[in-house]
Amino acid sequence: MHRPDPSALAYVPFVSVDAMMRLVAQVGPEQFMAELAGFIEDDFRRWPEFDKTPRIASHSQDGVIELMPTADAESYGFKYVNGHPKNTKDGFQTVTAFGVLSSVATGYPALLTEMTLLTALRTAATSALVGKYLAPKDASVMALIGNGAQCEFQALAFRALCGINTLRLYDIDPKATEKAMRNLSARGFDVTACDSAQAAVEGAHVITTCTADKKNATILTDNMVGAGVHINAIGGDCPGKTELHPDIVRRADMFVEYPEQTRVEGELQQMPLDHPYTELWKVMRGEATGRRDARQITLFDSVGFAIEDFSALRYVKAKIEAYRVAQPLDMLADPDDPRDLFGMLERSMAPAAA
Amino acid sequence: MHRPDPSALAYVPFVSVDAMMRLVAQVGPEQFMAELAGFIEDDFRRWPEFDKTPRIASHSQDGVIELMPTADAESYGFKYVNGHPKNTKDGFQTVTAFGVLSSVATGYPALLTEMTLLTALRTAATSALVGKYLAPKDASVMALIGNGAQCEFQALAFRALCGINTLRLYDIDPKATEKAMRNLSARGFDVTACDSAQAAVEGAHVITTCTADKKNATILTDNMVGAGVHINAIGGDCPGKTELHPDIVRRADMFVEYPEQTRVEGELQQMPLDHPYTELWKVMRGEATGRRDARQITLFDSVGFAIEDFSALRYVKAKIEAYRVAQPLDMLADPDDPRDLFGMLERSMAPAAA
Repeated sequence: MHRPDPSALAYVPFVSVDAMMRLVAQVGPEQFMAELAGFIEDDFRRWPEFDKTPRIASHSQDGVIELMPTADAESYGFKYVNGHPKNTKDGFQTVTAFGVLSSVATGYPALLTEMTLLTALRTAATSALVGKYLAPKDASVMALIGNGAQCEFQALAFRALCGINTLRLYDIDPKATEKAMRNLSARGFDVTACDSAQAAVEGAHVITTCTADKKNATILTDNMVGAGVHINAIGGDCPGKTELHPDIVRRADMFVEYPEQTRVEGELQQMPLDHPYTELWKVMRGEATGRRDARQITLFDSVGFAIEDFSALRYVKAKIEAYRVAQPLDMLADPDDPRDLFGMLERSMAPAAA
Repeated sequence: MHRPDPSALAYVPFVSVDAMMRLVAQVGPEQFMAELAGFIEDDFRRWPEFDKTPRIASHSQDGVIELMPTADAESYGFKYVNGHPKNTKDGFQTVTAFGVLSSVATGYPALLTEMTLLTALRTAATSALVGKYLAPKDASVMALIGNGAQCEFQALAFRALCGINTLRLYDIDPKATEKAMRNLSARGFDVTACDSAQAAVEGAHVITTCTADKKNATILTDNMVGAGVHINAIGGDCPGKTELHPDIVRRADMFVEYPEQTRVEGELQQMPLDHPYTELWKVMRGEATGRRDARQITLFDSVGFAIEDFSALRYVKAKIEAYRVAQPLDMLADPDDPRDLFGMLERSMAPAAA
């Protein structure tokens, strides 16, 4: 294998928040998520090739900090991500993230990027990709329950991948709904603000729940969900945090990313150990059935898995050259003689006292 | 708790390789490691307060990429580190690393730093700190077997913390020994190059092994180790990589960092499950005995644990203000309204087509 000059690799391409915004603006957010969904789909279809592990979480009273690594034969990627629901009241974000993609052959990082925006984009891209497989035929109306940071990304991704243009919004905080109404109207959606979750789901073919409370909430109760809908449950994504009443989960057919992680983080944590589910990578490979019929309730028990971040890192890396959005970061020591790390340090110092 | 302005926290202080070299040069490498050893000692003494996990390793044919997280009630830290022994033949480093220290309260990163140099410094600082507890009284001669990137750091740290100034070097590659002779003579050590490991250990009170081959090697055999020495075994640090003949390990009293990790990575992997060891944090708290007598062979089965990196991150963070070595990195998205991530993106774009 040809390896480039070590000195060049000592500088890691870094994509800042500002650079990521420029990249998304230039590609266009819908196009970005459509292309990213393609990368995610490619990686789901080669699922068995990946080195997989549930995320490594460090829980505290106010939140969680997680590392999400995965690797194929060529690349290793990981994301750092926090989840602190109380952050917003102090003007901080609930979720911030950054990530790294490295060469498996040398262990050298080849990309460092902000992932707060990128996580929002990949979460929505994954939802819409799954929607492409599971949403009812000709779905055109989506309920969006929870109108926080993830809401608009879900809407744009579902339009880009599933053609959904009519939205019904609800949030316990009317200000969040106002914000989403404003953003989504400007993007040409047909949007209705609803005064309850019950009202929001009326006539919806897809129900997206993306609420942020770190507890067992019941955003949807059984009577609210009619036959044939697809539920895209985003918010239940850590231990003790769920969004759906168990009766709906029982009525629906559940589809998951990585069962070992969904078991402890998703709606699946409410269910007995033998509760059936289908792994999405098998659906995407054609080895398992997705939507079976028009009356089936499908449930994507989304928790977010490392391979989706890996796809996002791959996608950004594929874009940085053409869009010139990376800056070189002096992150890796590069001694002339790799065994002479001390000599490198020595030469940067004043002459040593003998 | 007072929280600073979110906008200020959206910029993460970054310490580049160049900045780290300046910091080490300004503090002085021996002073740096002596101070760092103090931070490590403090953290070992409050060991039970930490959230601990064995490192998360992704192994491939040529090497390993690892994440090493840990946290106390205030801070969360992790290190990314690779180990690729074949890298050096292509001019790459065997080990490169970087790390992050975050606030547990908000999940926001508060420091991103190169850790290739910092890992070399913390590994040596830990060894010398342990040497302070375990080396024989009035130890003055150290054998350094393996004269790669870690060698000089070990020498300086042992001088700073244990007063050792006489060194006996050996490496299978004479060029590595030449390099170390040059660097260490310039730093005022009394250094002898030896033509075998056997010759190097003659008269040594401390034997440091820091070789890099990823296999079960036998750097020291039983007959080479006399009564009363302290063995500082650095190189055996991943599954299938050991440096000592099992007979020495049996004759010595073993001291370890985190047993769950040493069991799979250290010399301990050669031993039966009931092989006795002492945890170093207990020695540092005065809850376990260190060196018992002048004839005892002590063995620090060093593998490197996340808390040492945490201490190093804490130490660097404590230094950056006074030494002005950090640059602000635009790594965290900072929307005016934290729920309006999309609005932040929107405002950076051209007016949306309706």
